Amino acid sequence: MSKTLRVTIWNEFRHEQKDVEVTRVYPKGIHAAIAAGVGPLLPEAQIRCATQDEPEHGLTADVLAGTDVLVWWGHMAHGEVRDEIVERVHTRVLEGMGAVFLHSAHYSKPFKKLMGTGCGLVWRDTGERERLFIVNPAHPIADGLPPHFDIPAEEMYGEFFDVPAPDELVMISWFQGGNVFRSCCTWTRGKGKVAYFRPGHEVFPAYHQAEVLRVIANAIKWAAPASNHPYTLDAPYQRPLSPIA
Amino acid sequence: MSKTLRVTIWNEFRHEQKDVEVTRVYPKGIHAAIAAGVGPLLPEAQIRCATQDEPEHGLTADVLAGTDVLVWWGHMAHGEVRDEIVERVHTRVLEGMGAVFLHSAHYSKPFKKLMGTGCGLVWRDTGERERLFIVNPAHPIADGLPPHFDIPAEEMYGEFFDVPAPDELVMISWFQGGNVFRSCCTWTRGKGKVAYFRPGHEVFPAYHQAEVLRVIANAIKWAAPASNHPYTLDAPYQRPLSPIA
Amino acid sequence: MSKTLRVTIWNEFRHEQKDVEVTRVYPKGIHAAIAAGVGPLLPEAQIRCATQDEPEHGLTADVLAGTDVLVWWGHMAHGEVRDEIVERVHTRVLEGMGAVFLHSAHYSKPFKKLMGTGCGLVWRDTGERERLFIVNPAHPIADGLPPHFDIPAEEMYGEFFDVPAPDELVMISWFQGGNVFRSCCTWTRGKGKVAYFRPGHEVFPAYHQAEVLRVIANAIKWAAPASNHPYTLDAPYQRPLSPIA
Amino acid sequence: MSKTLRVTIWNEFRHEQKDVEVTRVYPKGIHAAIAAGVGPLLPEAQIRCATQDEPEHGLTADVLAGTDVLVWWGHMAHGEVRDEIVERVHTRVLEGMGAVFLHSAHYSKPFKKLMGTGCGLVWRDTGERERLFIVNPAHPIADGLPPHFDIPAEEMYGEFFDVPAPDELVMISWFQGGNVFRSCCTWTRGKGKVAYFRPGHEVFPAYHQAEVLRVIANAIKWAAPASNHPYTLDAPYQRPLSPIA
Repeated sequence: MSKTLRVTIWNEFRHEQKDVEVTRVYPKGIHAAIAAGVGPLLPEAQIRCATQDEPEHGLTADVLAGTDVLVWWGHMAHGEVRDEIVERVHTRVLEGMGAVFLHSAHYSKPFKKLMGTGCGLVWRDTGERERLFIVNPAHPIADGLPPHFDIPAEEMYGEFFDVPAPDELVMISWFQGGNVFRSCCTWTRGKGKVAYFRPGHEVFPAYHQAEVLRVIANAIKWAAPASNHPYTLDAPYQRPLSPIA
Repeated sequence: MSKTLRVTIWNEFRHEQKDVEVTRVYPKGIHAAIAAGVGPLLPEAQIRCATQDEPEHGLTADVLAGTDVLVWWGHMAHGEVRDEIVERVHTRVLEGMGAVFLHSAHYSKPFKKLMGTGCGLVWRDTGERERLFIVNPAHPIADGLPPHFDIPAEEMYGEFFDVPAPDELVMISWFQGGNVFRSCCTWTRGKGKVAYFRPGHEVFPAYHQAEVLRVIANAIKWAAPASNHPYTLDAPYQRPLSPIA
Repeated sequence: MSKTLRVTIWNEFRHEQKDVEVTRVYPKGIHAAIAAGVGPLLPEAQIRCATQDEPEHGLTADVLAGTDVLVWWGHMAHGEVRDEIVERVHTRVLEGMGAVFLHSAHYSKPFKKLMGTGCGLVWRDTGERERLFIVNPAHPIADGLPPHFDIPAEEMYGEFFDVPAPDELVMISWFQGGNVFRSCCTWTRGKGKVAYFRPGHEVFPAYHQAEVLRVIANAIKWAAPASNHPYTLDAPYQRPLSPIA
Repeated sequence: MSKTLRVTIWNEFRHEQKDVEVTRVYPKGIHAAIAAGVGPLLPEAQIRCATQDEPEHGLTADVLAGTDVLVWWGHMAHGEVRDEIVERVHTRVLEGMGAVFLHSAHYSKPFKKLMGTGCGLVWRDTGERERLFIVNPAHPIADGLPPHFDIPAEEMYGEFFDVPAPDELVMISWFQGGNVFRSCCTWTRGKGKVAYFRPGHEVFPAYHQAEVLRVIANAIKWAAPASNHPYTLDAPYQRPLSPIA
């Protein structure tokens, strides 16, 4: 475990360059907004960004080897993420890299591969009020948050959210239009800690809101490697540990 | 949900045809031994078998559509199972087909895809005593079993078993040579119920032992669809359920 | 495990006799409404009722010994339930009796003793719309229910619900006034299966609504003993199972 | 959350004063051995001890208010711990104090109250080899430990261990005499994090062994409050958060 917390914020970075409505909200990209927002909350962190249209999607073996926690935002180009990079990310998570998947990353290839399920949900992009309730006040991701907080306008994601029952359920969302969603969930896969956090549709400014940034910062801290225990992907032979009579 | 319990027992069926030591133990194949053993315990079941070297590995769309619970044994030819059939099995599990993975199926493609982890473990094929302890006496899979039972000679599988923390842990194995293993675990994926049960190395007669067969029969009953609730693999749009002011 | 499903529906039965508003909704008592409603859904069941003001609260050792699943509704007189009867109920649950706690039974003595937590929540009795979403479509309690259903007027119970993280989360409620709640949860305690289901404030007719009755019937079936595995409350000495050199 | 980690190690402290065999192993008491052993591993901690025969068992309201994590060892005098102090400990855990229960504390009043189950097990005090396996390498309690380690002589505790299914299972023990045990488990109750760790019978020197002390130190760090989120034991009324039409 490194002493600094090495964070890589990965963004598809397409909407922001194609759609003026999105550019207005995130002129430098969603990744830049998140980096700017969580930086002050994570003084121990070294934060870098990577985007899909860089070579190897910005996720070379070196970058991943030097990443303690990967944050992932993607939406319109999930299918263009190369399978070989997905394998690389997946393997690094199993080996211990934390991963925080945001919003439409529920349908990203690495998240689906880690979950083993369809990862579907119902949605509506009317721009309605979302209210997030903490249902696990002891959890590190709840630190510093009130019992509930509102996002004035968001895309709705509703149940059934087709993921494995989370190891820990941290938040549930209420939506004005009448839906609910398990909006902050955690799992462990291999040695890696995985969190999903629901907000931030690209046309709404959720990643400029203090509570949302606090959740992401908390999730990054939570997902950071917390054990230097050995881990291997193999299935090795082992001699008897005690004599067999 | 069908009234009869439609069970398909799938077996790689290679060891039994290539290795005389295995043929002696399972002359008609592991699938046949399991079918013969669990049949009398599941009077409500229609049991058929399928093997890897049949066309489409015996798992046509029709066969899977008519299967409530699939039992899976594989080992030496995991890599030869075609990805398209793996997809088909995976999808059917998400849609609600139960799946019971046995022994070396921990490394089968469908199991790995459902788990999202490496599925490794440590092993030793000395043929030592295994003792299985029930750690969840309320669970349907524990029905009719004593607090613990022995298998006189088995391959050892030991921790760390690289699977997601099971939704339910039903049994833990002790091995004479000094290891332990979470040997009966359950998960839900989509609408499908998934169980893993550790015994039966091909050179030992575990699938002729009453307690082992009872566990498999119980697991089949447990994994059978228990809810006719709707399920979809899509992420559909949904209009507001309540008015948005 | 008995072949008939022996159900005891226990009710405090005070509001119905003191408050005309409640009498109008449940003239024969909440227990009678539930019994009448779930009876046709549970043809295999023998249903009896018991109420708090009977001798021993209607829960003699004989009654409990002959009960497979106990349903519990209480509210204004939790404190009057005698500790000796609470012990008796608690012990029977550990030994394998199923228990389904309804609505304000979240604050009943047996539920609190089984949970080990404060069991608090926030509430509001305005009579607002509740919408319940299934978040575990594979679960037997979801059988026959649509993805979501409404109760037109109910008391609101909101998060944080101070219970241990449920073993299985089956439903989440949305409330018109802006709250959410984990409204159908399950746990195992000893050999007993325990479910909590949120609706039925005494002044509203939830227990006359088909979906609510279906959930209760499903929960009763789910909570019924499913394993005849031995269980003891002791901590007995055990000789070595294998020789210690 | 305090910046220093305020730890109180509580010990029954009877065996050590009555039984010369125990005095030889723990001349200053089990609490003193643990304090001496974990101190160097927890430089951020202020460690104090408390014992059962002090006034209020050494657990005054002030002491508990100033405790972030309570470690508990008890055995022969569980029944003499006053219920009022048990209530006080229980309430402080729900409010966020961490608690680490050791060995025979599985039968202590606070542990049983937090669990809601019988907390039984099988046991044998022959002094046999115990081998502990990590089954959750990502967990902070696994930090710095090898995949497995041995305690040369210990009392055996065996399954079935009658606790609620742990939120996280961290270790499983193998015993020479043929048993297994879920020997490191965690739960959350209210806002409090609770760990159970199986070793140290009073006549054996487990609390002088480096790996055992490392586990206890890790468990203390894990159980420390990690969220300053609000928590209340009440069930307060809440006005609508959104307008009810």
